[in-house]
Amino acid sequence: MKNEKDLKQYSIRTDLIVDLFDQQQTEDGVFSDSYQENDINVLEVTITKEKNKLNKKKGKYITISYQDVTDKVNAKNVETVVVKELKKMFLDLNIDENKKCLVVGLGNRKSTPDALGPKTVDEILVTRYLYEMDNIEVDKDYRNVASFIPGVTGNTGIESSDIILGIIERIKPDFVLVIDALASSSMDRVNKTIQITDSGIHPGSGVYNNRKELSYETLHIPVISIGVPTVIEAFVLVSDTIQYLLKHFSYNKENYQKNKLIPVTMRNYKNHTKELSKEEKIQLLGEIGTLTEEEIKELIFEVLTPIGYNMMVTPKEIDFVMDKTSELLSSAINKALHKNFDI
Amino acid sequence: MKNEKDLKQYSIRTDLIVDLFDQQQTEDGVFSDSYQENDINVLEVTITKEKNKLNKKKGKYITISYQDVTDKVNAKNVETVVVKELKKMFLDLNIDENKKCLVVGLGNRKSTPDALGPKTVDEILVTRYLYEMDNIEVDKDYRNVASFIPGVTGNTGIESSDIILGIIERIKPDFVLVIDALASSSMDRVNKTIQITDSGIHPGSGVYNNRKELSYETLHIPVISIGVPTVIEAFVLVSDTIQYLLKHFSYNKENYQKNKLIPVTMRNYKNHTKELSKEEKIQLLGEIGTLTEEEIKELIFEVLTPIGYNMMVTPKEIDFVMDKTSELLSSAINKALHKNFDI
Amino acid sequence: MKNEKDLKQYSIRTDLIVDLFDQQQTEDGVFSDSYQENDINVLEVTITKEKNKLNKKKGKYITISYQDVTDKVNAKNVETVVVKELKKMFLDLNIDENKKCLVVGLGNRKSTPDALGPKTVDEILVTRYLYEMDNIEVDKDYRNVASFIPGVTGNTGIESSDIILGIIERIKPDFVLVIDALASSSMDRVNKTIQITDSGIHPGSGVYNNRKELSYETLHIPVISIGVPTVIEAFVLVSDTIQYLLKHFSYNKENYQKNKLIPVTMRNYKNHTKELSKEEKIQLLGEIGTLTEEEIKELIFEVLTPIGYNMMVTPKEIDFVMDKTSELLSSAINKALHKNFDI
Amino acid sequence: MKNEKDLKQYSIRTDLIVDLFDQQQTEDGVFSDSYQENDINVLEVTITKEKNKLNKKKGKYITISYQDVTDKVNAKNVETVVVKELKKMFLDLNIDENKKCLVVGLGNRKSTPDALGPKTVDEILVTRYLYEMDNIEVDKDYRNVASFIPGVTGNTGIESSDIILGIIERIKPDFVLVIDALASSSMDRVNKTIQITDSGIHPGSGVYNNRKELSYETLHIPVISIGVPTVIEAFVLVSDTIQYLLKHFSYNKENYQKNKLIPVTMRNYKNHTKELSKEEKIQLLGEIGTLTEEEIKELIFEVLTPIGYNMMVTPKEIDFVMDKTSELLSSAINKALHKNFDI
Repeated sequence: MKNEKDLKQYSIRTDLIVDLFDQQQTEDGVFSDSYQENDINVLEVTITKEKNKLNKKKGKYITISYQDVTDKVNAKNVETVVVKELKKMFLDLNIDENKKCLVVGLGNRKSTPDALGPKTVDEILVTRYLYEMDNIEVDKDYRNVASFIPGVTGNTGIESSDIILGIIERIKPDFVLVIDALASSSMDRVNKTIQITDSGIHPGSGVYNNRKELSYETLHIPVISIGVPTVIEAFVLVSDTIQYLLKHFSYNKENYQKNKLIPVTMRNYKNHTKELSKEEKIQLLGEIGTLTEEEIKELIFEVLTPIGYNMMVTPKEIDFVMDKTSELLSSAINKALHKNFDI
Repeated sequence: MKNEKDLKQYSIRTDLIVDLFDQQQTEDGVFSDSYQENDINVLEVTITKEKNKLNKKKGKYITISYQDVTDKVNAKNVETVVVKELKKMFLDLNIDENKKCLVVGLGNRKSTPDALGPKTVDEILVTRYLYEMDNIEVDKDYRNVASFIPGVTGNTGIESSDIILGIIERIKPDFVLVIDALASSSMDRVNKTIQITDSGIHPGSGVYNNRKELSYETLHIPVISIGVPTVIEAFVLVSDTIQYLLKHFSYNKENYQKNKLIPVTMRNYKNHTKELSKEEKIQLLGEIGTLTEEEIKELIFEVLTPIGYNMMVTPKEIDFVMDKTSELLSSAINKALHKNFDI
Repeated sequence: MKNEKDLKQYSIRTDLIVDLFDQQQTEDGVFSDSYQENDINVLEVTITKEKNKLNKKKGKYITISYQDVTDKVNAKNVETVVVKELKKMFLDLNIDENKKCLVVGLGNRKSTPDALGPKTVDEILVTRYLYEMDNIEVDKDYRNVASFIPGVTGNTGIESSDIILGIIERIKPDFVLVIDALASSSMDRVNKTIQITDSGIHPGSGVYNNRKELSYETLHIPVISIGVPTVIEAFVLVSDTIQYLLKHFSYNKENYQKNKLIPVTMRNYKNHTKELSKEEKIQLLGEIGTLTEEEIKELIFEVLTPIGYNMMVTPKEIDFVMDKTSELLSSAINKALHKNFDI
Repeated sequence: MKNEKDLKQYSIRTDLIVDLFDQQQTEDGVFSDSYQENDINVLEVTITKEKNKLNKKKGKYITISYQDVTDKVNAKNVETVVVKELKKMFLDLNIDENKKCLVVGLGNRKSTPDALGPKTVDEILVTRYLYEMDNIEVDKDYRNVASFIPGVTGNTGIESSDIILGIIERIKPDFVLVIDALASSSMDRVNKTIQITDSGIHPGSGVYNNRKELSYETLHIPVISIGVPTVIEAFVLVSDTIQYLLKHFSYNKENYQKNKLIPVTMRNYKNHTKELSKEEKIQLLGEIGTLTEEEIKELIFEVLTPIGYNMMVTPKEIDFVMDKTSELLSSAINKALHKNFDI
């Protein structure tokens, strides 16, 4: 039914290390730590060997997981964690307050879920032009910061990486901060995770475009990227739904008597954990029931791709969530970059 | 496995008559006609009885189906058909060139697929204020036209229908033209269909909000609505994909020898028609394989709704498609409204 | 040289009471008070007689004058004053926390200096739709608030006042808050003044349009308007410049020795107060030198109007100032309306 | 009263050659030609010597003057002339259809009169990414075109010229097309002139920023710039108004009997040509009446600059004019660049 070669060829990428980490055991060259603060989970993964089972680049990966940023109090708490983790990352990378920063917002301003980078950069406090002026003494509590929104290849005809490389060569910042909307490989993470990493931006990242690598290796300055999964691809939605279908059956079987009077669309089975037996799965889903989660993803990818239907999936209130997430990120970045921002 | 009562309660609505029409036979009180022009299909359905199997309101429903509006030539052809059908509709409803029009763009400007109404109305040529001036003689080849964008309830706190009714009461137009983005009940129609109807805007229409009815019955003036399906809901995507999964199996089985060397993601099986046998379906999909298309939709709806995951699905290039569709619609409406627009 | 009748006919309106107040003495039926807080001046004028020399409607007029809202600390201070004055106004008008509010943003979103109203309303927290839902208990520390952006007549073909009246009739708020960009009659006030008044919005207000009156008299509910002068008309710029020309001469004459080595464009004479003698004025400006400030304004108005050149004047950094002013206003209004907003 | 040294120091720049050309005689090294088409005037000035009285760089300067682009027919006529002149310029510079183009839109999207460049570039058809793909055969009737919007220094902290140079170095276009909003040195030209030149963009161009030179000399590829004056500076408005004041007096004196019953604001004296005598000027305007136009400009510049009031002046309907002008320019550029655009 499946072709082993194809499977590898189309192995499904994820931009989030936490997706891989859930599924794999820790191993040589991969270290992790985690903590919790105000219902926010922070996972720190450090990869020290270039060749590793996660198939991820060397570097530090901070994953901040939360429930909701449309709640004001919660957003403030998440912001505090982002500021703290950014400052830690600066310390680790020897980025002191004299180091000049270029902040780059990737993505397409006209597509709501992809506008996160541009919307965040709109609110970054830039100071570089003041530092460039001859007769102005800049308050050193404000770092030398420039920002840039390269747009998308479909609108400019130019790869974002070419634009960014061109600008870096001319203005020579000491480090780069890149904000981007990502594709999630799980419905549960979309708009609920912020990933900060110093491993660079890799080809294939971003919602739409393949892009050349921007990293310490290619630029010789630290590249810190902040990514938020804001969409899922159609094949992920379908395969996640098949898993939820099984859980839904298991839950309803288990709670048959109790639930009789509750409308089916109000029975929240999300935290139900008891799995169906292999036999039950086959009864319900036939051969599909015998496949692993990963195999189902591959299969659905193979079904949707040839007919051009691997669409983009977002929550319905995406415009509001993007407003709140970009507000949170720009405020956190301003505070991490400028000592005096909050006063 | 399913609950007959629930099924009715959550019967899945569609804004497009063509979705129902594909599935049902013509019947008493429902008349239809169709023609083709430059690869564009036009289906005209007239419903003359209030009680009908389609469960749709009395009125005329024009469905214009096309492949792509990002191609310039094709967009021009579609525009020509829209102008022609709008003018026919005006004639049917005794809307002569002295009749004053209010054009309303429903939807949320900040959400790419829901911005169709506002973006279209941005380009409508309004003249009403000239007609209201005492000492100006308006060229009668430009109709008296006003326009309005009510925004969405989440941003204003007010139902769109209340805003529109309030304005209609004050400015008293002779007819209303409403543009709205719709949810499609099929992946194949999204951004490939324009529906024009004089049956009014009904509760539950629109991507996001329940809205009070705007129709001849409630307003005592003709209400013509132009709708384009720009999103599908997650449950539609999942259930359509299950159908495509079956087709994919059938195609691959049939073409096993021929396809051996073609990568699986390049085998376009979309127009394959041979269905799997009942036994094959059960082998592949177990009990799910015994359900009808409609039953699978219901089931997936029941799986996604309780966990809050009935998301919104759009093509990845939605921003570009919305630009082109709103250009097409505003140009067509201007030409249908103003005799002299094109000169 | 001038025609007395014309003068009256084209008497130059101002939206700001402070413009008139500077020039006139207090009189019967006009009471005023003022205070200063963090370099912010607050002038409260109460007009109790319909017929008064200021030719202004009865009501309370609060004028908040400040130097700059692009400075963060200063903006915070101004915001604090606006919140306090709005709450006082609510108290005076018996608007308790159960009263329902409609917030209206007048002006043209596409014209930078006229976008103040729409930009402010974009950030107002609306709750009305929650109050309208049957099964939701709304936290009473959040007032019932709806908001609306009517657009401009040039784009809709409809007068803003008609749109607002239509909506008020349908949703029946207990009071209305209107935000609008005004024309200033002095270069010194532009973007440096906020006027809050309960006297209504009067015909001729706003940068562009004549509008019907929205006031307690016409609507039977309190109408509070918040206006900021964001532009000056060309005739004001020219006549103000002629006054500055005289001051510039006087200053340079006085400081001839002292200034010899200072470039002329760096000699800030703004606070110079010594006036030229009548003879000096005539020597420099001929007959123009004999006119009063008011007469010069009239004359320049008469020069610019017939050739269609009464243009709009704004500071060059208007986009940035509008961002900051709308942020300040929306934050202040949210805090004044919602008890719990700031927590 | 004035300081000769200051005068030179602050000599008022203009971006438009036509401003200088009106005032000066043709001379050695400066050739000109002109034609008229549908009420549109086209002036072609060629400067062949680096040192010339116009103090302008060597190159060709095309000035297209028209009355109004908000009229559809007129806009079409202007567009036709722009296409023709661009194609002639390409021919002169040996730019054949295989030459790769980078289109750059200078200016600030958030400031209505300065958004011309970004708004025009939004609608440019880009194809470069298709040419970069390995397995795509691009229709050669569509030129290889990329586009870019660098933003303004106040928002990015980076000079536009640095951004553009960085991108040019990476993508190596064969020529550059730059669109920019200019400051006009005359009220009569604002939004009524398009200047096309191959002499490069010079320091001090643009509404707001000083920018490094982008020209054939610095980039070694042709740089064609398209500029439209969309604002005037305050000192220009004031000094132009003083000239109109004199004309207004002259007209009213001349037409005293005839005009008695016409309201003063309706007496269009614009095309009145008879000048006042020197004595009359002095009577009316004192010493100011003895100054030349140029001297008055200098004086007003000296009055406004030290008090920070050299504001920006635009017509009130600037948003509408910018929509129409950017539509005209993007359509003209697309047609000049792509052989097949219009089909």
